[in-house]
Amino acid sequence: MRAVQVVGYHENLRMSEVPVPEADGPFDVVVRIGGAGVCRTDLHILEGQWAEKSGVGLPYTIGHENAGWVHAVGSAVTNVEEGDKVIVHPLVTCGLCRACRSGDDVHCANSRFPGIDGDGGYADYLKTSARSVVKLDESLEPADVAAFADAGLTAYHAAAKAARRLTPRDRCVVIGAGGLGHIGVQVLKAISPAELIVVDRNPDAVKLAGEIGADHGIVADGGHVEKVLDLTGGEGAEAVVDFVGEGGATAEGVRMLRQAGEYHVVGYGENIDVPTIDIISAEISFIGNLVGSYNDLADLMALAARGSVTLHTVKYALDDFQSAIDDLDAGRVRGRAILTPG
Amino acid sequence: MRAVQVVGYHENLRMSEVPVPEADGPFDVVVRIGGAGVCRTDLHILEGQWAEKSGVGLPYTIGHENAGWVHAVGSAVTNVEEGDKVIVHPLVTCGLCRACRSGDDVHCANSRFPGIDGDGGYADYLKTSARSVVKLDESLEPADVAAFADAGLTAYHAAAKAARRLTPRDRCVVIGAGGLGHIGVQVLKAISPAELIVVDRNPDAVKLAGEIGADHGIVADGGHVEKVLDLTGGEGAEAVVDFVGEGGATAEGVRMLRQAGEYHVVGYGENIDVPTIDIISAEISFIGNLVGSYNDLADLMALAARGSVTLHTVKYALDDFQSAIDDLDAGRVRGRAILTPG
Amino acid sequence: MRAVQVVGYHENLRMSEVPVPEADGPFDVVVRIGGAGVCRTDLHILEGQWAEKSGVGLPYTIGHENAGWVHAVGSAVTNVEEGDKVIVHPLVTCGLCRACRSGDDVHCANSRFPGIDGDGGYADYLKTSARSVVKLDESLEPADVAAFADAGLTAYHAAAKAARRLTPRDRCVVIGAGGLGHIGVQVLKAISPAELIVVDRNPDAVKLAGEIGADHGIVADGGHVEKVLDLTGGEGAEAVVDFVGEGGATAEGVRMLRQAGEYHVVGYGENIDVPTIDIISAEISFIGNLVGSYNDLADLMALAARGSVTLHTVKYALDDFQSAIDDLDAGRVRGRAILTPG
Amino acid sequence: MRAVQVVGYHENLRMSEVPVPEADGPFDVVVRIGGAGVCRTDLHILEGQWAEKSGVGLPYTIGHENAGWVHAVGSAVTNVEEGDKVIVHPLVTCGLCRACRSGDDVHCANSRFPGIDGDGGYADYLKTSARSVVKLDESLEPADVAAFADAGLTAYHAAAKAARRLTPRDRCVVIGAGGLGHIGVQVLKAISPAELIVVDRNPDAVKLAGEIGADHGIVADGGHVEKVLDLTGGEGAEAVVDFVGEGGATAEGVRMLRQAGEYHVVGYGENIDVPTIDIISAEISFIGNLVGSYNDLADLMALAARGSVTLHTVKYALDDFQSAIDDLDAGRVRGRAILTPG
Repeated sequence: MRAVQVVGYHENLRMSEVPVPEADGPFDVVVRIGGAGVCRTDLHILEGQWAEKSGVGLPYTIGHENAGWVHAVGSAVTNVEEGDKVIVHPLVTCGLCRACRSGDDVHCANSRFPGIDGDGGYADYLKTSARSVVKLDESLEPADVAAFADAGLTAYHAAAKAARRLTPRDRCVVIGAGGLGHIGVQVLKAISPAELIVVDRNPDAVKLAGEIGADHGIVADGGHVEKVLDLTGGEGAEAVVDFVGEGGATAEGVRMLRQAGEYHVVGYGENIDVPTIDIISAEISFIGNLVGSYNDLADLMALAARGSVTLHTVKYALDDFQSAIDDLDAGRVRGRAILTPG
Repeated sequence: MRAVQVVGYHENLRMSEVPVPEADGPFDVVVRIGGAGVCRTDLHILEGQWAEKSGVGLPYTIGHENAGWVHAVGSAVTNVEEGDKVIVHPLVTCGLCRACRSGDDVHCANSRFPGIDGDGGYADYLKTSARSVVKLDESLEPADVAAFADAGLTAYHAAAKAARRLTPRDRCVVIGAGGLGHIGVQVLKAISPAELIVVDRNPDAVKLAGEIGADHGIVADGGHVEKVLDLTGGEGAEAVVDFVGEGGATAEGVRMLRQAGEYHVVGYGENIDVPTIDIISAEISFIGNLVGSYNDLADLMALAARGSVTLHTVKYALDDFQSAIDDLDAGRVRGRAILTPG
Repeated sequence: MRAVQVVGYHENLRMSEVPVPEADGPFDVVVRIGGAGVCRTDLHILEGQWAEKSGVGLPYTIGHENAGWVHAVGSAVTNVEEGDKVIVHPLVTCGLCRACRSGDDVHCANSRFPGIDGDGGYADYLKTSARSVVKLDESLEPADVAAFADAGLTAYHAAAKAARRLTPRDRCVVIGAGGLGHIGVQVLKAISPAELIVVDRNPDAVKLAGEIGADHGIVADGGHVEKVLDLTGGEGAEAVVDFVGEGGATAEGVRMLRQAGEYHVVGYGENIDVPTIDIISAEISFIGNLVGSYNDLADLMALAARGSVTLHTVKYALDDFQSAIDDLDAGRVRGRAILTPG
Repeated sequence: MRAVQVVGYHENLRMSEVPVPEADGPFDVVVRIGGAGVCRTDLHILEGQWAEKSGVGLPYTIGHENAGWVHAVGSAVTNVEEGDKVIVHPLVTCGLCRACRSGDDVHCANSRFPGIDGDGGYADYLKTSARSVVKLDESLEPADVAAFADAGLTAYHAAAKAARRLTPRDRCVVIGAGGLGHIGVQVLKAISPAELIVVDRNPDAVKLAGEIGADHGIVADGGHVEKVLDLTGGEGAEAVVDFVGEGGATAEGVRMLRQAGEYHVVGYGENIDVPTIDIISAEISFIGNLVGSYNDLADLMALAARGSVTLHTVKYALDDFQSAIDDLDAGRVRGRAILTPG
């Protein structure tokens, strides 16, 4: 089969011919890829940023946002069967550690990350686990939803954690309405009754946010903290979900937060650097957010199936993988680039 | 009546004769003081640290940790009557704002703080509100519990927030077993099934912690982070409650935290300064803690009534207030100094 | 002022001239009535069903679903001022008991119920408490929202309790899409991502439910339990909210419930009568629901202000109170009858 | 190996020689039995009460409360290894269904129940799953803890669900301090700060309850409902955990419940039969409780390891199985009968 592989850092990816993986382990599931998201992390992999951390040997097949059809299953698989349409959770987890037993499989003590520390989905087929596949509703196509597998799932997870405490009288600020934030706004709209205030430097992103559910949009042009305070009666918002996390976003974001408010950290880059006296006197919290769990992905797919959350995608044939990489690197992709079998 | 007053910053307190306050407002409660805690904040007030923030006019009566007997009640008071033994919540709250209506009266939009922004309890009588008095069990004496009103209440609140997620398999690290931490350990023991690990620089404090409920005590001598990791199988603890918050405690404390763990900030002084990438990759939270609510104080008094939480006190007659202040300032008080009517 | 009063049981109401109430207590609020809902409970009062339970003396002014404008306030009122548009929570609560201090004011140990155990709102003015008035958004008119004060509030409360556990993959069955159920469907749609299945005997009610948010509508014609099971893959729904509670609804409703599901009891009439073996083997819960709290009413008004929940009303001038009563009794009112100043 | 088998209903069990099971499936774990609890359910199996429901074929090996040492593991097992001391959760679950993925494995869509629908642990060896074994602390012996695997686990689960809402000011009534209730009292004492009131018909059981943590003991002699009301200031308790569920216990228990209280159903036999009007006007809940999850069992073992929960056992050699059965049937066993290898 075809497989786009990392053959060296600071080198281009290369198309190779490799054997189709087999479902030889009891919980193995081999998926015929219908769509594989091209993610900024893939560019970082090529730059060698993950080489040491992942310890992956070269060459290997890249791609961690995958969806497709079940091609083969191991002997113990009961949740999917050949032909099922599925999206693939990015982690392969053990199912036996305390985190897995608690529904918190993202913190699995023994997880693997295909596409980063082993073969991924820029290929005709991907080997994953029964614990990683979520069946798709008939109405959804793999190439349309593949990018939900990581980027969308992270946005869902953060939005769902924020939503736990949000009531109809609460205000939630979303900082950053780009790739993740754009999904976060849709999710918050679907699962929370709070008033949504979206802040972004890009006026087009702010405009789009208004079309997909934001109650208020603010262009981050210097007066945005004050505008949030104005919209919240001078109090600040009960929750801030920060999809940026760099360039001064966190210091500004904290000023938008109400007493006893929750600051959800999703984007990263800079430090949270806040005096403890401010944390206790306002009794605020800072809450980290990683990618979502298997259950989060299943919930997100339920929202997608009813059209509550959608994603703009640009499709490339697998053989044109280099164009997708180049376009992403050059900032020419609006929405998410997806490789399809072609 | 007697009242110990602030007459000028950087001056000694002075005993004055002032009129007994009257319960002329509908929810007023006048309490005959049985015990008034002498707190380090009182020293800071004298140094002028609160002058601008509180805006209090001089002279005024100091003292914000109070307990005693109800002396008089306003026309609308139904929850206590003359003669009742009570402890006094440090805040007077409105009962009408959203926070008050939600049981979260500490974030009352209109609160006052007697002893800091108005007359307090270094006196024979104190005027407070029906919303601030918690009836005491027969077994408790005002002078014994007065210091629970602020210091103890803060420790209770932080411990109770941490306990919400603690199960029998979880580990909770308490950093600092001094005034607040010492109460926090007792509260965690009483309301949580988690394993308690106490860290303090003072070997005597560590020893005492072991006697009041800590499962493990660690002297903070440089190897303490590693000792916590050893005790937790290399994983770190599910919760850290930091009663120190300065001198590098937070940076060390974060290293003691498990993936998805909660870091409770109680002590203050330095900054929380953590890369956002670390916050999201470990998916940890930082949770601020202010003083407890009225309900927290009532819960704490229930624990005190059954002997689950006790406090070491050193009593001084009200007329000897200067000795109490001097002893506290010189580090000669073990436990809490309490002024009594004498 | 005008006041429609109960002068005897099994007698017609009578219009009387009585003095305008005064805000003589510190937390009193006198409201100029803009709308007073005519409720089936009012018919039951006239039949004497509440005579013993309420202990009310005759004559007195009836009406417990009220909204209007603040006319006068007591000396300690800080949350509203003269001229404010308000809806009136049906209970007057003490603010000092444990329930009130916990945001659970419905279980106040000292509550009163104007319109049932004292003078209500079929009048030009009503005396209530600062603790009972919720300010209305500019966009809302008292006569349009008055019926939310009791019927709507009960539906909101039950829907909000059910929504706490509902995720995008969950299914919630609403039994009964009449007065309360019709609001419950709108609330569930607004605050929960669950799939909504509405069951009612009346095909028109089912049709209307579909227009306001139900994902599936089922006419209760005998095969409805099986239809719910079909729609839920044979499993049953994670939650059932039963606005009927009589005529066999509960026995049918329990059969619609999934393992570990929650059965919310709102309507009443018959007994919950279920073998304990069935309760434990399916591990289901039965959850009672009373009227909502002050916070619930404020949340509901936030939803109403943004148009998420609306109510069909038929308005009658106060002087035509008898027509409203007669129409309600004869089943001629579609939606809710509201008395207005005229 | 030896295996005590059901060879016919209404016949005695018979000792047979059967092959030692093999760990041929990837997640199989074969446990060398150290202790197997003799449970009243085993008597019911012999009476044929489970024949139709379980559909088990005869002969088969009985016994569903098991602990011992890991003898062999399948190819995919990572959480235990040969020689580990373990207790065995009574269910074998799939790990792939929604319930399993949420930590709620008791509601697994594909579970099996060794000892009831397949071979159990009255034998030298038992075949179970990696998902069912919890490692024991060094301080615990299999024969001492085996009975926690089902009876104790059910008590833990109910106590833990009740404890979620219990604060230091709450009161929890435990109805029935026999086998399960006796463990429930210890668990509630260990994980909850509530005041515990134990009600039982047997004065000895009441006395014992006081020794293991009950704050108040009441002999159910007719005046017990009033005694509970007296102890709770006439209000009733915030929670009732009913380990009896027959003989009128539920009707009495409901009268002991406070407004907004929770009634936990554990014991079974009679119906919950309560007017919906009473459920809504007091806003009470009835909460079913099945056996605990894998996580519950791990938590319970953490409590057992520190001595917070203990069990009285009477040990019989496996070859003396008939004596154990006879003694249990005749009411001669105090605590729990345990079969050991002998």
